[in-house]
Amino acid sequence: MDQNTPPPGGRLLYAAGGASANMLYASGLITPDPFLWYAVPDETGLVLGPLEVGRAQKQARSGLRILSLEQAAAAWGLPKGKRGPVDLIRGLAKTSRVRHWQVPDEFPYGLAAQLRRSRMVLTPVKDFFPERATKSADEVELVREGVQLAEAGLFRAIEILREATIQGDLVAWQGETLTAEILRGEVDAEIARQGGTASHTITAPGPQSADCHMCGTGPIFAHQPIVLDIFPRVDRTGYFGDLTRTVVKGKASPVVKRAYEVVREAQRRATEAVKPGVLGKEVHQVAVDVIAASEFPTDAKLVPPHGFFHGTGHGLGLEVHEAPRFSTVNDQPMVVGNVMTVEPGVYYPEWGGVRLEDVVVVWEGGCVNLTTAPFELEIA
Amino acid sequence: MDQNTPPPGGRLLYAAGGASANMLYASGLITPDPFLWYAVPDETGLVLGPLEVGRAQKQARSGLRILSLEQAAAAWGLPKGKRGPVDLIRGLAKTSRVRHWQVPDEFPYGLAAQLRRSRMVLTPVKDFFPERATKSADEVELVREGVQLAEAGLFRAIEILREATIQGDLVAWQGETLTAEILRGEVDAEIARQGGTASHTITAPGPQSADCHMCGTGPIFAHQPIVLDIFPRVDRTGYFGDLTRTVVKGKASPVVKRAYEVVREAQRRATEAVKPGVLGKEVHQVAVDVIAASEFPTDAKLVPPHGFFHGTGHGLGLEVHEAPRFSTVNDQPMVVGNVMTVEPGVYYPEWGGVRLEDVVVVWEGGCVNLTTAPFELEIA
Repeated sequence: MDQNTPPPGGRLLYAAGGASANMLYASGLITPDPFLWYAVPDETGLVLGPLEVGRAQKQARSGLRILSLEQAAAAWGLPKGKRGPVDLIRGLAKTSRVRHWQVPDEFPYGLAAQLRRSRMVLTPVKDFFPERATKSADEVELVREGVQLAEAGLFRAIEILREATIQGDLVAWQGETLTAEILRGEVDAEIARQGGTASHTITAPGPQSADCHMCGTGPIFAHQPIVLDIFPRVDRTGYFGDLTRTVVKGKASPVVKRAYEVVREAQRRATEAVKPGVLGKEVHQVAVDVIAASEFPTDAKLVPPHGFFHGTGHGLGLEVHEAPRFSTVNDQPMVVGNVMTVEPGVYYPEWGGVRLEDVVVVWEGGCVNLTTAPFELEIA
Repeated sequence: MDQNTPPPGGRLLYAAGGASANMLYASGLITPDPFLWYAVPDETGLVLGPLEVGRAQKQARSGLRILSLEQAAAAWGLPKGKRGPVDLIRGLAKTSRVRHWQVPDEFPYGLAAQLRRSRMVLTPVKDFFPERATKSADEVELVREGVQLAEAGLFRAIEILREATIQGDLVAWQGETLTAEILRGEVDAEIARQGGTASHTITAPGPQSADCHMCGTGPIFAHQPIVLDIFPRVDRTGYFGDLTRTVVKGKASPVVKRAYEVVREAQRRATEAVKPGVLGKEVHQVAVDVIAASEFPTDAKLVPPHGFFHGTGHGLGLEVHEAPRFSTVNDQPMVVGNVMTVEPGVYYPEWGGVRLEDVVVVWEGGCVNLTTAPFELEIA
């Protein structure tokens, strides 16, 4: 989907498939150790250690030449014992007569510095695979799996809150005070059981829910909002899901009920605005306008900030936050295949926050919602 | 512990505390977003976004100056709207009159290239915090927590295997065929419940256990080895544990029993060799010698490799694999505070593998074992 003509020269990645979304996208391999991906005019390939080559033959993306270190050394005429990434890239450069390389911004500087000393030219690229922003039909299904894992986690949290009993201001479950830590542990455990990994899941009770980056700690309070923000990764594929609901065990206060209505309306209206051609900032503005027209004021300069002060959503795929964005700075049009969160919220340190988040796919004439979790504020 | 005189100039990190072990070590903060850590002759500090500054004031390592983006912009005279990492580092460089910076090898090349265009000199350093290899007493306790989480996962696996019943060649649990996926999910769920994150836990049944990087898939076989390799991270601190046991549901074959004895003897003898002053390669050689003297041959050039072809252990801390190593290439002496795995194994594609792994701390006159899990091959 890149509309620029390809630059002369080649492209390089050196990273572990388990740690780098670009490498996983390029190779299809989740590995603990770094390896080399390269693209030169005649071929695109991988060079892997002896423990990984067999698996790569079976699981790597199609169309790639797959080489063990020894095969690469033979193909590129490396001296004995020279099998490091600098040696490999030097050999590749000589064989393919490529000296100019595009690398991603996050390419390791230590390796780059060594390659530059071998008179290679490296150009860092911010958006190394711009096509990652437009998902194929297969990728949409992989994100849907992630969303379903997040829903499994949410349903577990709701089940626990249903089973729990209110005792004064607090909540008891299985004979002890229910805490943010227990709730998070049970959510993450359900996701682990189903083949995903969730960490730093947000189960933020009461006023803590006003801090968007707070995971939550200590007792769950009755009759106060609990923000549940769950973003698991599917272990098998590396694709993420993302889901937020706000719930109250017991009775929500009038202000929380009203905030929920306003945020839900902002989310609904922003979702309706999502379609091919709409600018990222326009979708964000729809959510901003709904909240600005309500009784919930925004002041991003207060410490902590009040109201609705974050973007309305972000791309979702092999990273939990990726391009594009629903934010004031994105004046690019949405295209079919963008997979986006839609997640307005309002936050006030006095009583906490409300955030609601679904995942949608931009589709002809609008968007398709991948999220099926219901919107129920109060849990009896 | 770095014996070189400090170079003139400063030091920089730019990374998320949740993704970079060096940043977490430097700052004490687990964050989803990247931020700046700097050291100049007069001070060491952090610059964080508005959502993170409050938490940093409470949780960051002591001795650091903590600045919000706006405070840094004011301190370093940045123009309005210039708050990116390049702007910050330019302002810091001007104010502190530092133009030479040490950065870690993994520093992002895109940022480095921009800084170089501002006439700064960046030197990549392979081992940015060599002191990470020698743990403080507090850090040893944090690794011990990780090992205990791994043990909780192992005990869950053993509990399930005890509850399971042998049905022909396979194993049934809770009314269905027990698979590597179910076993892994239950192990990871137990760890999640206790505040850790485990992913790519190895539960490799039968011949799959011969491939050290294979997580395991499909049915658990009765009377065949199952390698359980569990390496969770404690969510609160970022420190890892690491633990491997090999078990058989039912009766182990004579060859598996004998391999277990040999690997256990190699592990015991290697552990006895660990003390201050011993070279990393000497500890490895002890394990190699025990296995070489047995009836289990090693040939690393076969595809897949046979016997004992990996290192005997690695450092453990904020990364699951970190310096130093028990391997042929480490001719450095161990020092008090090194936290190391001791994990010999033998692998044969015909019947699978046996690996046993404990974690030890190098201590005066020897080492202390942090692992308490028993060694029991057969589960009835």
